[in-house]
Amino acid sequence: MNAPRHTARRMLPAAQFISAMTQRFGDRFSTASAVCAQHGKDESSLPPVPPDAVLFALTTQEVSEAVKLCREHHVPVIPFGTGTSLEGHLFAIHGGLSIDLSGMNQVLAVRPEDLDVTVQAGVTRKQLNNALHGTGLFFPIDPGADASLGGMAATRASGTNAVRYGTMRDNVLGMTVITADGAVIKTGSRARKSAAGYDLTRLFIGSEGTLGVITELTVRLYPIPEAISAAVCAFSAIAEAVNTVIQTIQLGVPVARIELLDAIAIKAINRHSKTTLREAPTLFFEFHGTPTGVGEQAQAVQAIASEHGGMDFEWATRPEDRSRLWQARHDAYYACLGLKPGARALTTDVCVPISRLAECIAETAADIAASGMTAPLVGHVGDGNFHQAILVDPEDPADLERAHRLSARMVERALRMDGTCTGEHGIGIGKQKYLVLEHGDAAISVMRAIKHALDPDNLMNPGKILPPA
Amino acid sequence: MNAPRHTARRMLPAAQFISAMTQRFGDRFSTASAVCAQHGKDESSLPPVPPDAVLFALTTQEVSEAVKLCREHHVPVIPFGTGTSLEGHLFAIHGGLSIDLSGMNQVLAVRPEDLDVTVQAGVTRKQLNNALHGTGLFFPIDPGADASLGGMAATRASGTNAVRYGTMRDNVLGMTVITADGAVIKTGSRARKSAAGYDLTRLFIGSEGTLGVITELTVRLYPIPEAISAAVCAFSAIAEAVNTVIQTIQLGVPVARIELLDAIAIKAINRHSKTTLREAPTLFFEFHGTPTGVGEQAQAVQAIASEHGGMDFEWATRPEDRSRLWQARHDAYYACLGLKPGARALTTDVCVPISRLAECIAETAADIAASGMTAPLVGHVGDGNFHQAILVDPEDPADLERAHRLSARMVERALRMDGTCTGEHGIGIGKQKYLVLEHGDAAISVMRAIKHALDPDNLMNPGKILPPA
Repeated sequence: MNAPRHTARRMLPAAQFISAMTQRFGDRFSTASAVCAQHGKDESSLPPVPPDAVLFALTTQEVSEAVKLCREHHVPVIPFGTGTSLEGHLFAIHGGLSIDLSGMNQVLAVRPEDLDVTVQAGVTRKQLNNALHGTGLFFPIDPGADASLGGMAATRASGTNAVRYGTMRDNVLGMTVITADGAVIKTGSRARKSAAGYDLTRLFIGSEGTLGVITELTVRLYPIPEAISAAVCAFSAIAEAVNTVIQTIQLGVPVARIELLDAIAIKAINRHSKTTLREAPTLFFEFHGTPTGVGEQAQAVQAIASEHGGMDFEWATRPEDRSRLWQARHDAYYACLGLKPGARALTTDVCVPISRLAECIAETAADIAASGMTAPLVGHVGDGNFHQAILVDPEDPADLERAHRLSARMVERALRMDGTCTGEHGIGIGKQKYLVLEHGDAAISVMRAIKHALDPDNLMNPGKILPPA
Repeated sequence: MNAPRHTARRMLPAAQFISAMTQRFGDRFSTASAVCAQHGKDESSLPPVPPDAVLFALTTQEVSEAVKLCREHHVPVIPFGTGTSLEGHLFAIHGGLSIDLSGMNQVLAVRPEDLDVTVQAGVTRKQLNNALHGTGLFFPIDPGADASLGGMAATRASGTNAVRYGTMRDNVLGMTVITADGAVIKTGSRARKSAAGYDLTRLFIGSEGTLGVITELTVRLYPIPEAISAAVCAFSAIAEAVNTVIQTIQLGVPVARIELLDAIAIKAINRHSKTTLREAPTLFFEFHGTPTGVGEQAQAVQAIASEHGGMDFEWATRPEDRSRLWQARHDAYYACLGLKPGARALTTDVCVPISRLAECIAETAADIAASGMTAPLVGHVGDGNFHQAILVDPEDPADLERAHRLSARMVERALRMDGTCTGEHGIGIGKQKYLVLEHGDAAISVMRAIKHALDPDNLMNPGKILPPA
């Protein structure tokens, strides 16, 4: 396989470090191999790499102290949220301490009057939305997994609602971050906009723990729309579904979600959930607004869809009917895995300008067909972002090799089309060579200069994002 | 006055530099004092500081070569767009070369199908919108002045439409930037979202020329709404106007613009434009959407306004009627200057969480009243951002001193309320001490480390944003 296997230059932490950590943190610091193993795997198809030790941190102050001890003893620091990342972000490829932030799960301040909330980094998106119950507000970013907000910020996550509400980049007002020297910094304020100095908030968002550890975040909230409606529509060809999306976006219909599943993904869902959906490329829509507004949006989209041969257009406003329509979409990931027993998914993640989407998907489909692999498509197509979950037998090197070649060609195709190698999953260890291909050497030098300036000892999640110089 | 006067450590460029630049750029390079004087002033009340020379650049490649020559001869580089900045951003406080980008005014590629456009940095927002004529698309960011897009990105500008469409931060997909070593880098792609590495686009946005020179930008466009309506409403007290705004935002009415003018600003407009508006705090709204949608929005806002004692609620959908309603708002800046002949305006720029806006404006009004200054209010209140244009006699040191004290108290008040010292104008030389107050020493150290890493010789717009260490 092409994915790098980094196990070289691994330095075991000194006994003094172990003893200092134990003294300070008691049994919330562990070197037990089961605990370490748990903190060395994510949801990718990459082979796990456990850390040497784990700290279950409870406060910003504790993270700061731990980072200072790590620096003193030259031990790498790897932040851990829920372990749902997809590119090996949390693998301890140079060894070191995993700082588990899942115990930092306090919702610190809900401010309905300002439509914002401050949380500890371990709060998950579902937990946050539960905590908002009764306020009339919600947090829209939904990457699928019930990820922690700290992890979502660190990977610049997005998901199904991004076409309307933006990504983590757009929805974090400010953060508390522990830098490589253990200092506690605050980025941003609670003002909705600011022109005050370098945008540290945006610099740490997407930095995957390589510049510091995010311990608290203030994020934007939105009023729960007065009306929500959902629609589902099947198409005889994937190009027609995609052209429906393109025209919807170009006309400025303010859809909240537009998801595409291909015929194989629908087939997987029918098997998994005992449904009888038409096994054809299918779009799932969600509209947010006033009752009149969502009606207008659904009508506009239905008109566009029927111009492109859309079939069985169904729409619903009652919560139970909406859930029924969207259930298939929610089941997609596990349903797809079920297509090939024992398989893991190499989840690709390209994103292209919307005008190239049909072409990009068509070329990719032909490439997949030629490869003989099974790789259902699930896409946040309103943003031009789609995943082909390439199903691989993790024990079969030839299968892995084929999957990685397919993935590489997807990335190269997206870059040729002015797109990106990752719309929302991040670089981790899995996509470093594509990072260079996408940005070019000069921009990579700027990234390296920033990394070196903020983490001169290369202890903050070392070996991630930037390839070895 | 409190504003710093930086003229120390000014190094005159060596004759060899002058000769190399003349040889390379001919008469597009100038050391004429009239040309330099023109490039040393902005629209602030700060005393001008001209550069030693000016280059009228035409291409990215020329900017790269000029920066390399500056580096070789240790000459500071100051990018110049239209000269409409407000905090001394373009003052050559350490001498150096002003690179005038106004000749880089090519719209390089309009892509209606992707809702984006690539422009050279000297293209102004009005020029861009003219170039978009007939495409059905527009670029929404409107800071008032007809600024260049490069300058708007460099200062993280926003303005009246930001409450709906965001700021420059949210609307730039990617840029071409010349770094301190003269390298040409590309940040971002044309994908709508990306999780590929450090967010260099956002790092350069708002960096005010201190990390590099922006030469090209790709920005997002939006479909011109099917319907636009405008509304104007006066209130007996400013608190009632502000509470109308707060409730509108909290209910999630998707207004495109909400502007507040206080009674003094309206009085200035009546004098300046011979209008007979009620001299009371007044809100100006604009709604974008479908015909039904804008009708619903206007009704929702009218209902909220009348709960808060709104008077004379007028709304209009025909372009000529909308223009009439908004004319007063557009005239505001020059009308306000007319209140005190010969005056310049110290344009303040605080931004606070919306729940604190009424309190912040009330305390500020009381402070202004006590100071005896004239300072009409114009605010992008949907974002919690407002300006009091403090009218000063630029020849009267005592007047300037009073104005700066008033401005300082506004900033301190905004920071106490979790806000920012600048919503959209930037730091320049005018707000450096507030930058430190807002972010704290630890975050400022991170900014310094970035500046040093990317500009080790401190030649990129030196002395701006970060105060002397």
